[in-house]
Amino acid sequence: MRQKLTAAVCIIGTELVRGIIQDGHARLISAEVTTLGFSVVQIVIVPDDNGISRILSDFIGNVDIIFTTGGLGPTTDDITRSVIAHAAGVDLVEDKDAREQLVKRLKNEPGEANLNQIRLPDGFSIIPNPVGTAPGFYGTIIGRKKKNTVIISMPGPLVEMQEMFLNRVLPIVKQLYNITQEQGRTEASIFLIPESHLEEACRVCAVPGVEWGTRIQQLRISLYLKSGSNEDRNRMLEKIRGYLGPELVFPGDGMPYESLILYLKEQGMMIAGAESCTGGLVSKILTDIPGSSYWFWGTAVTYHDSAKERLLQISGKSLEQHGAVSCETALAMAERILHISGSDAAYSISGIAGPEGGTPEKPVGTVWFGFASTDRKSTAVRIQFNAYSRGSVRHRAALSALLLLDNFIRGKEPLDIVDKWQYI
Amino acid sequence: MRQKLTAAVCIIGTELVRGIIQDGHARLISAEVTTLGFSVVQIVIVPDDNGISRILSDFIGNVDIIFTTGGLGPTTDDITRSVIAHAAGVDLVEDKDAREQLVKRLKNEPGEANLNQIRLPDGFSIIPNPVGTAPGFYGTIIGRKKKNTVIISMPGPLVEMQEMFLNRVLPIVKQLYNITQEQGRTEASIFLIPESHLEEACRVCAVPGVEWGTRIQQLRISLYLKSGSNEDRNRMLEKIRGYLGPELVFPGDGMPYESLILYLKEQGMMIAGAESCTGGLVSKILTDIPGSSYWFWGTAVTYHDSAKERLLQISGKSLEQHGAVSCETALAMAERILHISGSDAAYSISGIAGPEGGTPEKPVGTVWFGFASTDRKSTAVRIQFNAYSRGSVRHRAALSALLLLDNFIRGKEPLDIVDKWQYI
Repeated sequence: MRQKLTAAVCIIGTELVRGIIQDGHARLISAEVTTLGFSVVQIVIVPDDNGISRILSDFIGNVDIIFTTGGLGPTTDDITRSVIAHAAGVDLVEDKDAREQLVKRLKNEPGEANLNQIRLPDGFSIIPNPVGTAPGFYGTIIGRKKKNTVIISMPGPLVEMQEMFLNRVLPIVKQLYNITQEQGRTEASIFLIPESHLEEACRVCAVPGVEWGTRIQQLRISLYLKSGSNEDRNRMLEKIRGYLGPELVFPGDGMPYESLILYLKEQGMMIAGAESCTGGLVSKILTDIPGSSYWFWGTAVTYHDSAKERLLQISGKSLEQHGAVSCETALAMAERILHISGSDAAYSISGIAGPEGGTPEKPVGTVWFGFASTDRKSTAVRIQFNAYSRGSVRHRAALSALLLLDNFIRGKEPLDIVDKWQYI
Repeated sequence: MRQKLTAAVCIIGTELVRGIIQDGHARLISAEVTTLGFSVVQIVIVPDDNGISRILSDFIGNVDIIFTTGGLGPTTDDITRSVIAHAAGVDLVEDKDAREQLVKRLKNEPGEANLNQIRLPDGFSIIPNPVGTAPGFYGTIIGRKKKNTVIISMPGPLVEMQEMFLNRVLPIVKQLYNITQEQGRTEASIFLIPESHLEEACRVCAVPGVEWGTRIQQLRISLYLKSGSNEDRNRMLEKIRGYLGPELVFPGDGMPYESLILYLKEQGMMIAGAESCTGGLVSKILTDIPGSSYWFWGTAVTYHDSAKERLLQISGKSLEQHGAVSCETALAMAERILHISGSDAAYSISGIAGPEGGTPEKPVGTVWFGFASTDRKSTAVRIQFNAYSRGSVRHRAALSALLLLDNFIRGKEPLDIVDKWQYI
């Protein structure tokens, strides 16, 4: 067995050492490269100044790989490029491919500041950045002891760095070091389950030889099962699905609306919605998706009671009798928007997001969901969320609506599903 | 004026470099000591191994103060005490006060493992730990260049470290360096302006002696002006406001809707909206705010053209004639939702978020905004956003709507404002 590979992580940003912002990169990089078999010997957080140079030269020749983030912006503060070029003993040269991409992105000739961003150390390879103007780059430097050190440099903004690291840098690292152990990995996406409950579920459902790890992502937690046989990992995943509810655990990496949208497209269906406490959050999530106009009609965000009357023609008398947060109102909202829109199916959400507005019968966190469609009976279900915060109630209500609507239009009964959700 | 004091932060813990847990100390320490006037030159995260020794000896004699956290536990993995004693050239000796406290805490004679925790470098002072068994300690080491370096060592668990740092360590630091006054600082919130343009604006508007820093936050960039006199900082801020547009630069730390909501509450006004390309994003942002039901009626998310007809009763003929993304449609959307809702003012948004749907006359990034109110003439303005991404167009359109609505209801003309927005 070869010696363990070593890595250093260098997070660059003056605002980090001033404590203005919290670093979000070090943990992600460390966790992923540890999984690949590297030993991270040090994480360093430094300001955008000449101190970087000394730190890099300490690492070069001593570790196999250095990851840097930050300092790739267009301003003169952003000196990572020149520091690395200096360490490698090469000049900064404009990268042709990067220039083309930049022109395409800006739809204009780039200015001097932006041009700085595409001047990379000579001989280094570019790593494209689809979500920002600063490309990353990587190359090899020979250290004092003739030991090669690879430097991989990524931008600082979280979304840019994450996209680049997960989708581009990790494959490069695997290829450079011929790491193939990835065959032993099974991934799943977990919705609505708090991290601590997921950890508990993994322990309860553990299969000997299978390790697990999680990562909090947008709208989901990713679960990674590693080691053990493929069969063992799948067995553990099935146990977890049974334990938490199969609707909350999807195999593979996916968003909570993927199954829904797949079905809508397959069936050529159009949906509409009516939202009260979520204030348009479901609608926002759905319209984030390019091409959503093919299957999404729109939503009535009926926040105020009078909006339920005037946009949806729900009678004030019914609202008064049952309350805005009730089975009857949720049903009426879904049915009215289905009718008005002429869509094939509709969802509705009405609840108490807090922090105020709760009562003993309807405490903060009470949310009613309604579902209606042209080809089956309408239905409504209530979920009582733990009221950690207004944001958390709204977020979980939106995810629940998406997951339940998917099941509803596929002919399942939302009530049967929600009954089994013990851990949300 | 004495030279700026320098600090280094050393976070010790193997689970941190493996990415198993997220560090929570570095930012707290950095932020607090920066406020006291220190310059943090480096934050290092290292495993509990002999690497710590080399890092400390690099810092000793080079910085004024070193903060360490972690490695003070009872097990043999916890080597911080012995590493620091070694760096100071002294032995570890049992601290009498610490022993007394430990006996009191354990209500029993301490075992060998616990006794390790109260063996401190000879000559160092103890820092009591009221929430755990490991006391902290501090002392001075003379470095190679005869420069003194203070080392302050704190335990790793978050609650223990926080209590000790905030209540005990900070007072010690202030006393050691005779720090009585915290640095002057002026803060502002910047909306819609890309970071690179903000940097340019700061350079153009620079006032000698004033330093600046920025931080990307939710829905805004925070700008910090430091050093210089209060007057100088305010003068620079006013220059920046003039340069970028006063509507895009608010003094203080605030969200892009704060001025709007303040006015709505003051006036007892209710607003409503109609959104197409933003899909409910403005509505989502507004309803994130607790108590929004007092001033927010709701929104018609009329994503599909038929939704504009059926929810807002805009004629299909008019939509066909002018297009969904047009001055006429934006005006009609705002006026119709104003009428339907019976609110005091209304906004509308209709645009092309992309990536598809653009035409030569209406490329991706074209967004029309409409504003209507009960007491003035309706108006509509068009903004052409750079189409970096669908998400970016939607995000900036939502922020623009919030800022323009604030100005509209305060009697200003959105067209005059938008005309001066050169940098969004």
